[in-house]
Amino acid sequence: MSNQTDPIAELINLLAVLPGVGRKTATRFVYFILKQDAEYVKDLAAALVELKEQVGFCAHCCDLTRESPCRICGDERRDHQTICVVQSPQDVLAIEATGEFRGLYHVLHGILSPLEGKGPDDIKLAELLARLSNGVEEVIVATNPSVEGEATALYIKKLLVPLGVKVSRIASGLPMGSHLEFADKVTLGRSIADRRVL
Amino acid sequence: MSNQTDPIAELINLLAVLPGVGRKTATRFVYFILKQDAEYVKDLAAALVELKEQVGFCAHCCDLTRESPCRICGDERRDHQTICVVQSPQDVLAIEATGEFRGLYHVLHGILSPLEGKGPDDIKLAELLARLSNGVEEVIVATNPSVEGEATALYIKKLLVPLGVKVSRIASGLPMGSHLEFADKVTLGRSIADRRVL
Repeated sequence: MSNQTDPIAELINLLAVLPGVGRKTATRFVYFILKQDAEYVKDLAAALVELKEQVGFCAHCCDLTRESPCRICGDERRDHQTICVVQSPQDVLAIEATGEFRGLYHVLHGILSPLEGKGPDDIKLAELLARLSNGVEEVIVATNPSVEGEATALYIKKLLVPLGVKVSRIASGLPMGSHLEFADKVTLGRSIADRRVL
Repeated sequence: MSNQTDPIAELINLLAVLPGVGRKTATRFVYFILKQDAEYVKDLAAALVELKEQVGFCAHCCDLTRESPCRICGDERRDHQTICVVQSPQDVLAIEATGEFRGLYHVLHGILSPLEGKGPDDIKLAELLARLSNGVEEVIVATNPSVEGEATALYIKKLLVPLGVKVSRIASGLPMGSHLEFADKVTLGRSIADRRVL
């Protein structure tokens, strides 16, 4: 960094590229950070450096992690016969927060999207196939319920069913606490088609 | 930082305290940062450290700056007879961006607010008074057009008029491009009361 650069302007420029953050929000961040004690700023700078230096892919699930195998893949108490396939590391956190899943994950780091030129070789599908030899019984495809997410799920099904692996898909339907009258047609239709016996 | 701390969780915790940022947004930031090149992360960490180490108050206007006097106070081409009083350093940036003001600033770092226990000694009023000996002719009070902002403007007027300084207030009225029918009553009333001759 040049000695001439104003540190306030410099930090605003760097923060303004964060997702959903423009120059106004970045400016708010900078003046907020200026009000914090030196400890906070030191920790923040250190955590950034540490993040980039220490975090990489887990050799098994491709999640971003400091150690490989990651905490989840290395946990013997988890169900190693079930793998939940997700698009991104954030999705692992989201599912873990539910406490409903005790199996392993596989992070695709993307989704099949012909429009964006993303094919099977651009996401971590080969890595998923390589894991199936270790007695995996079920693969739950938890890609987003979007056009690309559904297509990716079908692609994975075609790939894995011939190998004798059960492939399932997370349920789509009305969110808890929502109202039928405000639901979109596709969601409501899906919730009727996928009804379960009580 | 303990060696046991996960750098992702650590950085999420630190970013989640930024204004308007919760855990979800902080998580998005972290995964965005993970995708950036090492250069960006190094610059960001360095800018943070530099910010805290180098930025302090300007001895004249109390703005946050790396050098004192700050770039504005040290600029001989600016009008040193006119001081624009603002609540926060962000307001200086906002007014500078208009290109309409060529005088100096004074940053109060707050506003009179009896409800929050903020009195004249809690904002940089003494520092403003100390600057008036240097031939200042006009003080423009650019605090926000809120109850506290108006009260602070009146307080400053009472303080400065006996010293022979002209005190003015930024105009309130309808924002450019807005519609009368949607304006609130107070703003519309003010725009009529403060009408100017064409």
